[in-house]
Amino acid sequence: MMNSTEKSLPEKLSDDIIAYILEEQLQPNDKLPNESVLSEKMGAGRSSIREAMKLLASRNIVTIRQGSGTYVAASPGVVDDPLGFTFIDDKKKLTLDLLDVRFLLEPAIAEMAALHAEETDIRKISTLCDEVEALLLRGEDHTGKDIEFHTAIAMSSKNLVVPRLIPVINSSIPLFIQLTNNRLLHETIETHREITDAIAAHDTLRAKDAMYLHLVYNRRCLLDQKA
Amino acid sequence: MMNSTEKSLPEKLSDDIIAYILEEQLQPNDKLPNESVLSEKMGAGRSSIREAMKLLASRNIVTIRQGSGTYVAASPGVVDDPLGFTFIDDKKKLTLDLLDVRFLLEPAIAEMAALHAEETDIRKISTLCDEVEALLLRGEDHTGKDIEFHTAIAMSSKNLVVPRLIPVINSSIPLFIQLTNNRLLHETIETHREITDAIAAHDTLRAKDAMYLHLVYNRRCLLDQKA
Repeated sequence: MMNSTEKSLPEKLSDDIIAYILEEQLQPNDKLPNESVLSEKMGAGRSSIREAMKLLASRNIVTIRQGSGTYVAASPGVVDDPLGFTFIDDKKKLTLDLLDVRFLLEPAIAEMAALHAEETDIRKISTLCDEVEALLLRGEDHTGKDIEFHTAIAMSSKNLVVPRLIPVINSSIPLFIQLTNNRLLHETIETHREITDAIAAHDTLRAKDAMYLHLVYNRRCLLDQKA
Repeated sequence: MMNSTEKSLPEKLSDDIIAYILEEQLQPNDKLPNESVLSEKMGAGRSSIREAMKLLASRNIVTIRQGSGTYVAASPGVVDDPLGFTFIDDKKKLTLDLLDVRFLLEPAIAEMAALHAEETDIRKISTLCDEVEALLLRGEDHTGKDIEFHTAIAMSSKNLVVPRLIPVINSSIPLFIQLTNNRLLHETIETHREITDAIAAHDTLRAKDAMYLHLVYNRRCLLDQKA
């Protein structure tokens, strides 16, 4: 999918730096060697290393902290809007199509979460559920916390892929909230609470069904608005 | 998810260029104005514009063709490995977890494809089915064509999101093929053929079930190998 024409020196070096991160098993937030060390290791000038680091930073593989150094990113390689939704014109169809995908994924993820959630996961989900509720009741923006809530559920599934997928899919939440406004206030509070309780009780079926309810309310609200 | 510290000038300019692409409704492969035009429009030096374009190229939003100019990428914003699977150490768990996600998505996608596929979609899926089969029978590498086959099915669903998701999820196919070798030769040929026929006949249930069969054979083969 990347431009497949011949690579520039900084592009080649950025591949070498990725290989280095993997070989040395550097973890998220680990510090990389400084420019002169890397320059020697890779047999390339310091300015080329600096160029390569800028490319890696734009792909969110490293984070450059001014005056401190270069670190492996917190979620290396996970970029903003990785599937390019910004470039899809029809935002209404995009929102409904994202909701279709949420129907396929999120009830099953809630089920997996109910099966595998540990005590710390449950505490995290409960806290986020409280925080979203408080924001909703005060009429404040709950977008970010809502995505965190659904991501915490995905983390509890212990599947390696879904926590990386859910924030991408739930980039639709700002669009929903815009389109559904606060009409879903009580339904959201109730279904979030039921999902949280079911996961805490390791009740797989109730967790799955509560997530279905949550999504059904969202879809109905969205379709009503379209009519 | 991106580094949220203050942005450099080329980073800010790259945001401006994205806004420009969207405002002007530039389409994939459309040519962008040249550096001096953009430099004037954005009120920034040509070298900063050039820097910004390099950042956008590394995110696959634009493609720089030497001697020709800068173009909107073919699938703008869709980068290689957008969910950072490269940085997950445990490839065996990753493969099984990706398969779990394929179970959630692909049977439903096959069903949507059976519902919405047009004549041109069906011809494309059939051709790819033939090509994968020929490669399998000759014992040649069918990885790329296999991903194309599953992506063509996703395209036929007419959902805007799944064709962007499936190539990411099916990045697991090279891993599968490596792990399952050619043990699934006949099962793969038969289930691919059945999926294709069911979509061509607009038979939603058979399309879904055939996809389930395909995934079950894959999972069993993978789990046998682990034992």
